Amino acid sequence: RFLWCFFFYIPDVNSFAARTNTCGELRAAHIGQEVTLCGWIQYQRQGLFLVLRDFQGLTQIIIPQDEAHSHVRKLLSNAPVESVVRVTGIVSSRPPGQENLKMPTGDIEVKVETAEVLNFCKKLPFEIKDFIKKSEALRMQYRYLDLRSSQLQHNLRLRSQVVMRMREYLCNHHGFVDVETPTLFKRTPGGAKEFLVPSREVGKFYSLPQSPQQFKQLLMIGGLDRYFQVARCYRDEGSRPDRQPEFTQIDIEMSFVDQAGIQRLIEGLLQYSWPEERGPITTPFPSMTYEEALADYGTDKPDTRFGMKIMDISDTLRRLDIGFVQNVLSYPHSTAKAICIPRGVRYLKNKDLESLKAAAKSQFNQCSALGSLRLESADLLEAAGMVLRDPAALHFLWVVDFPLFLPKEENPSELESAHHPFTAPHPSDTNLLYSDPTKVRSQHYDLVLNGSEIGGGSIRIHNAEQQRFVLEKVLKEDSEVLSHLLEALEFGAPPHGGIALGLDRLISLIVGSPSIRDVIAFPKSFRGRDLMGNAPDYVTPEELEPYHIHVSWPAAETEAKKN
Amino acid sequence: RFLWCFFFYIPDVNSFAARTNTCGELRAAHIGQEVTLCGWIQYQRQGLFLVLRDFQGLTQIIIPQDEAHSHVRKLLSNAPVESVVRVTGIVSSRPPGQENLKMPTGDIEVKVETAEVLNFCKKLPFEIKDFIKKSEALRMQYRYLDLRSSQLQHNLRLRSQVVMRMREYLCNHHGFVDVETPTLFKRTPGGAKEFLVPSREVGKFYSLPQSPQQFKQLLMIGGLDRYFQVARCYRDEGSRPDRQPEFTQIDIEMSFVDQAGIQRLIEGLLQYSWPEERGPITTPFPSMTYEEALADYGTDKPDTRFGMKIMDISDTLRRLDIGFVQNVLSYPHSTAKAICIPRGVRYLKNKDLESLKAAAKSQFNQCSALGSLRLESADLLEAAGMVLRDPAALHFLWVVDFPLFLPKEENPSELESAHHPFTAPHPSDTNLLYSDPTKVRSQHYDLVLNGSEIGGGSIRIHNAEQQRFVLEKVLKEDSEVLSHLLEALEFGAPPHGGIALGLDRLISLIVGSPSIRDVIAFPKSFRGRDLMGNAPDYVTPEELEPYHIHVSWPAAETEAKKN
Repeated sequence: RFLWCFFFYIPDVNSFAARTNTCGELRAAHIGQEVTLCGWIQYQRQGLFLVLRDFQGLTQIIIPQDEAHSHVRKLLSNAPVESVVRVTGIVSSRPPGQENLKMPTGDIEVKVETAEVLNFCKKLPFEIKDFIKKSEALRMQYRYLDLRSSQLQHNLRLRSQVVMRMREYLCNHHGFVDVETPTLFKRTPGGAKEFLVPSREVGKFYSLPQSPQQFKQLLMIGGLDRYFQVARCYRDEGSRPDRQPEFTQIDIEMSFVDQAGIQRLIEGLLQYSWPEERGPITTPFPSMTYEEALADYGTDKPDTRFGMKIMDISDTLRRLDIGFVQNVLSYPHSTAKAICIPRGVRYLKNKDLESLKAAAKSQFNQCSALGSLRLESADLLEAAGMVLRDPAALHFLWVVDFPLFLPKEENPSELESAHHPFTAPHPSDTNLLYSDPTKVRSQHYDLVLNGSEIGGGSIRIHNAEQQRFVLEKVLKEDSEVLSHLLEALEFGAPPHGGIALGLDRLISLIVGSPSIRDVIAFPKSFRGRDLMGNAPDYVTPEELEPYHIHVSWPAAETEAKKN
Repeated sequence: RFLWCFFFYIPDVNSFAARTNTCGELRAAHIGQEVTLCGWIQYQRQGLFLVLRDFQGLTQIIIPQDEAHSHVRKLLSNAPVESVVRVTGIVSSRPPGQENLKMPTGDIEVKVETAEVLNFCKKLPFEIKDFIKKSEALRMQYRYLDLRSSQLQHNLRLRSQVVMRMREYLCNHHGFVDVETPTLFKRTPGGAKEFLVPSREVGKFYSLPQSPQQFKQLLMIGGLDRYFQVARCYRDEGSRPDRQPEFTQIDIEMSFVDQAGIQRLIEGLLQYSWPEERGPITTPFPSMTYEEALADYGTDKPDTRFGMKIMDISDTLRRLDIGFVQNVLSYPHSTAKAICIPRGVRYLKNKDLESLKAAAKSQFNQCSALGSLRLESADLLEAAGMVLRDPAALHFLWVVDFPLFLPKEENPSELESAHHPFTAPHPSDTNLLYSDPTKVRSQHYDLVLNGSEIGGGSIRIHNAEQQRFVLEKVLKEDSEVLSHLLEALEFGAPPHGGIALGLDRLISLIVGSPSIRDVIAFPKSFRGRDLMGNAPDYVTPEELEPYHIHVSWPAAETEAKKN
């Protein structure tokens, strides 16, 4: 029933199109053939030749100089850079000595017979090739020009291929079902970061979910067994650097699985879809407990490409006869910790040490302080020329055994979920749930790559009573809003678990880009604006009418307060 | 660079899971093996045996009756129907004469050794197998139970497979790039059906687009060459039967292509992804002009599975000596048209004719009247037992040469786009654009299957001047809101075109379901409500505060009017 027949295949990128070849594929073997190319004029010189560009590469086009072709010559000489042309001509070998070894098509040139300018380009706001140096805002405003750069072309194509390979692995190799879940839903408890969508019913709003969490659990209860989706998710955090209001996750859930099962699945998924250009990856990935990660690296997403672990030097210091140190260390829970910076004396200048000292002071008493000092030290060492983190290295790491609950920041006597209220407790700690919930470890797992969190998931609670206890007794939340899920758990919910991978971040790490904006076709600015189309934008009061809402303009608010 | 290595592959649906087999795969060849199955109790009889179900099928499980297994027997006898269990046992042949030929696993049964109830099910609101007879509202409220039905399992799995095959065709075979475009954008002109999303900037709103139209054109201008996306789209039409506020389209755009190129691409796409169970499809699809479709079938989406074409009988009638008929036919543009209903005398009763007459009267003077009378006649004939439309037949049809503009319904002296303002005029009619725009045919094409529109697209305008003329001079629209697109056309836009297929409708036609709700995991009701999770829902005024909006409650409106 599920037989798949495949064979070695090279995509035909010229099918259905008005060209015979792309600008990247002609080689010496094509010499003598008549070809038709379409592309953009990258460069043109004195009516003698031009360089034509498309998504696949560059080809040198020779403009005929004889009288019979004077029309072609005039046309091509007058077309501005970035105009779109179609040329037909004969592939010829370049004259001896004029081959360009750096160009894949550098052995050949195309002698034009006929040409057509399909569209003229007006003066550009910048040169495409120099574009990278332009301001981020200008690049975003003319995003369609930025997309012509080889970097963005490469990033978007690689993203498409990686996702396709992931789908093959999940769907064709392991029987996962690609199911689309709604994005118009309703607020989840604590969903303060969810965008609202007014409906035509007075006072009622849809909400754009932060993830398909509820739906994927309901699919398991519905017997789907293995679900995945490349899911669009939404999060309204206001202005945040390198965050996007909409983002994409590889969303996975399966029934009758444990933590190790999900981990092996994901290792296989990444291994299968990993692009060749970044080299092979080794599985299984190493694993570290949350406790170990905090103790050794001061963070739950350790960058294990380099050492400089945090060391407890309390005992050493206690043995020294320094009054104030011994005094401080006599308090309960007092510890002294250190990071040993290899060859720090050689690489770090006084101003570097001052900067580290200032950073330490500003994070005084934060448990994550040493973790960020470790990273800052690494940055300073690398700025000074030390090679610490190999950019080609791939350090995957599972972080496990997270606490199930954490004290609320604003009121530490109350508890909140460390991740979300559907996370199952660690099998060894289930009894503690009812006696001392603060001590319960969870079945949550994070996947970390080179110090960035690229995924997280958990085995979920599948027992209605346990889920109700967590919501009502531990988290003291109103479970009414989740009544449909609680009821569903009572109707034969299978044990299940899953994970979500952050696709934007994963791809940006693969292509080595510092920002996720470089792997998204039309990203928003850090203020959540689309600078090209100018979104969000004002709407008329008439357009709001069907939704029974109106805008609280500041002036109106002042008025209201006066009355 | 693009080598794909595949082989015959059967997905491993048991990988990473706590079972050795599914409930659908055991055969005589497995006899003697120890297996572990997980599933739902479909049926249990007197502590003797039970039928276990999962997504792949049913397996008969024999409960041991000996003393050593009394615990297992008690456990399985007491577990209610739809409880989730895991059993381990030996595959055995059924006693002679007890084989069930209707069941794929009917040769075997599994003799339980150990068993575990993973979750108990409380009393169901209905039996799963009888569910189809329950009300739509009840099915929607307990959607996760409805999903356990073999029909919905089949529909969702088939949908996933068809989409996967489409991706293989586009991505692996023809080099299309899967690009995600934003869903938080801004209102398009005339976008009255677009949902609004309030932003944190006072008075500014995002809009959920009805399609990625602008973005896919900008991707072509950005040199992506071939784009596709399985795109989530949004349309707020209030209450409409069998429409969904969010829906999915296979969205495609390519550069340097003409109408025939897109048509061949789509024919190949459907042929490649068409599920075996619906038999092969023949290409190329026949084509019909908009004018022919209206004349012969009274609609632009003709169901060509049966004849009963509309005939012009004006000349015949003119020849008859009937005063009032000749009088009516003497007016300019007067015609008399007829549908010949084969064996209508035999199949249609008086009340059928009355109903057709009433329908005709209610649509008096509408040009589509004869088209719907033709369909209604077909319904009546089939209700009376005539076989008119073969449910297995697949009549694909391209409808082409649509008019570019149509008179506005509310003001026929003004023009609006027949489809959208980016559609290119027919090459032969380009000059008419400037002299008589009402006469211009477009390069729009619709794909019709068995009388349902399953797709539509066009070659786009790639010339900025022509686009500006259409927007400003013909449509008299404010082009400011599209200034980014107009500007982009000036910077070297390639000729391009595309299409969008309505995935929900296509899949519902493939599985033969009357409603698209049967091919969507979590559909909304026709009022746009999620009856399971109760969306949309009320939110607190505090939750609206960051978005600077408040609700216009009817009472408040009354108050406002008073003051």
